Amino acid sequence: MTPKVRLHLDQPLVPGQPLQLDRDQSNYLFAVMRLEVGQSILAFNGRDGEWVATVAAASKRGGELFVQHQTRPVQLPPDLWLMFAPIKKARTDFIVEKATELGAARIMPVMTEYTNAERIRQDRLQAHAVEATEQCGGTFVPVVDDLQPLSRVLAGWQPGRQLLWCDEAMVGASRPLTDLPRGPWAVLIGPEGGFSAAEQARLRALPFVHALSLGPRILRADTAAVAALTLWQAALGDWG
Amino acid sequence: MTPKVRLHLDQPLVPGQPLQLDRDQSNYLFAVMRLEVGQSILAFNGRDGEWVATVAAASKRGGELFVQHQTRPVQLPPDLWLMFAPIKKARTDFIVEKATELGAARIMPVMTEYTNAERIRQDRLQAHAVEATEQCGGTFVPVVDDLQPLSRVLAGWQPGRQLLWCDEAMVGASRPLTDLPRGPWAVLIGPEGGFSAAEQARLRALPFVHALSLGPRILRADTAAVAALTLWQAALGDWG
Repeated sequence: MTPKVRLHLDQPLVPGQPLQLDRDQSNYLFAVMRLEVGQSILAFNGRDGEWVATVAAASKRGGELFVQHQTRPVQLPPDLWLMFAPIKKARTDFIVEKATELGAARIMPVMTEYTNAERIRQDRLQAHAVEATEQCGGTFVPVVDDLQPLSRVLAGWQPGRQLLWCDEAMVGASRPLTDLPRGPWAVLIGPEGGFSAAEQARLRALPFVHALSLGPRILRADTAAVAALTLWQAALGDWG
Repeated sequence: MTPKVRLHLDQPLVPGQPLQLDRDQSNYLFAVMRLEVGQSILAFNGRDGEWVATVAAASKRGGELFVQHQTRPVQLPPDLWLMFAPIKKARTDFIVEKATELGAARIMPVMTEYTNAERIRQDRLQAHAVEATEQCGGTFVPVVDDLQPLSRVLAGWQPGRQLLWCDEAMVGASRPLTDLPRGPWAVLIGPEGGFSAAEQARLRALPFVHALSLGPRILRADTAAVAALTLWQAALGDWG
């Protein structure tokens, strides 16, 4: 029987390896999920795939697991970043959850001229990405960066990486994504108020930027993020 | 200046038409939004596009608006249905919101063998579709049906309508959506537990069913709904 509980443990996962649990993990497994010695969970660390690990010692203050066998190899995402302007808390959480599910490798909150948020709780968003990976059965946790200005990210742009810009002002069809080069990419979603005229002009002038239309309707930022990641994955990612 | 408040009013919208407000609408406009006589809102009814309407009488128990001029024609969605198995309340609400934004014409909750919900609040979900249309600037409100068994929907299937089935068991690439016929379509998303073996066999045997792969990762039902609607709209809908 496949264990029901999945847990992210930042420790090496190799057969026979003992895993020490901290207080939070122990509390979750033994107080909340009521696991007992001899029962198993699925463990992953983001690098070594998914493993069955069995409870060797159960205590709410600190328990120990024992790594058994691998159930799945690690499934790395394509080299895809999601850049987005943070919005309301619940919808920002949602974007992190969905980017994790859809297979983004890195999640970059960026500050634009019309972004309301001036800071984010990076640790909380990273924990949210871990939780989303635990729940969706993934074996890789995307890195969540701290908030940084879009202008600085663009100024220090990594050579060779393409940027798919969801341009609300774009009318009509964009170039088919399948015609674009494969390789490292980023997807950029604007804030609810859109990009400023200066930001739009700058993005349009950058050689690595490709505009994408998401249809004739106004989409919320969280919807646009899911839609753009989906179109990218289907055309240039690992969904093909 | 464009009015900030958008309101769905199920009344004819033609120039000079007076619009009577009920108690809820009056309370929202005059108590919550604090509009006064002479100020304007944007009104739509799902058929006649978007109009500027000006407050002629303001009272929390019942006010009156006066229709001025049209700001946008109605934008009808393609003939696309979203069929999905209801999940937890918040995520079902989310599916209705996203289907509205993405341009589905009809939203059909269906009961499958592994669906937990046995009833839904159709009136609440329909109100949620209205609210999503108000907020996303749309001019068309999709119809939300009451819950019905998937088996019955399939048995009474409308001739000429194609069905895009998001098949979790599918491995590898599906046929490119752009190769499929245009016209009336439905998208079908399963419950968190997937479809039963009998349901899968039935779907596979139906001539109007086309399977779609959403990549190698497990997606939540709400993510799958957004992803499938996006791929359909980009390939066969009005995003092109």
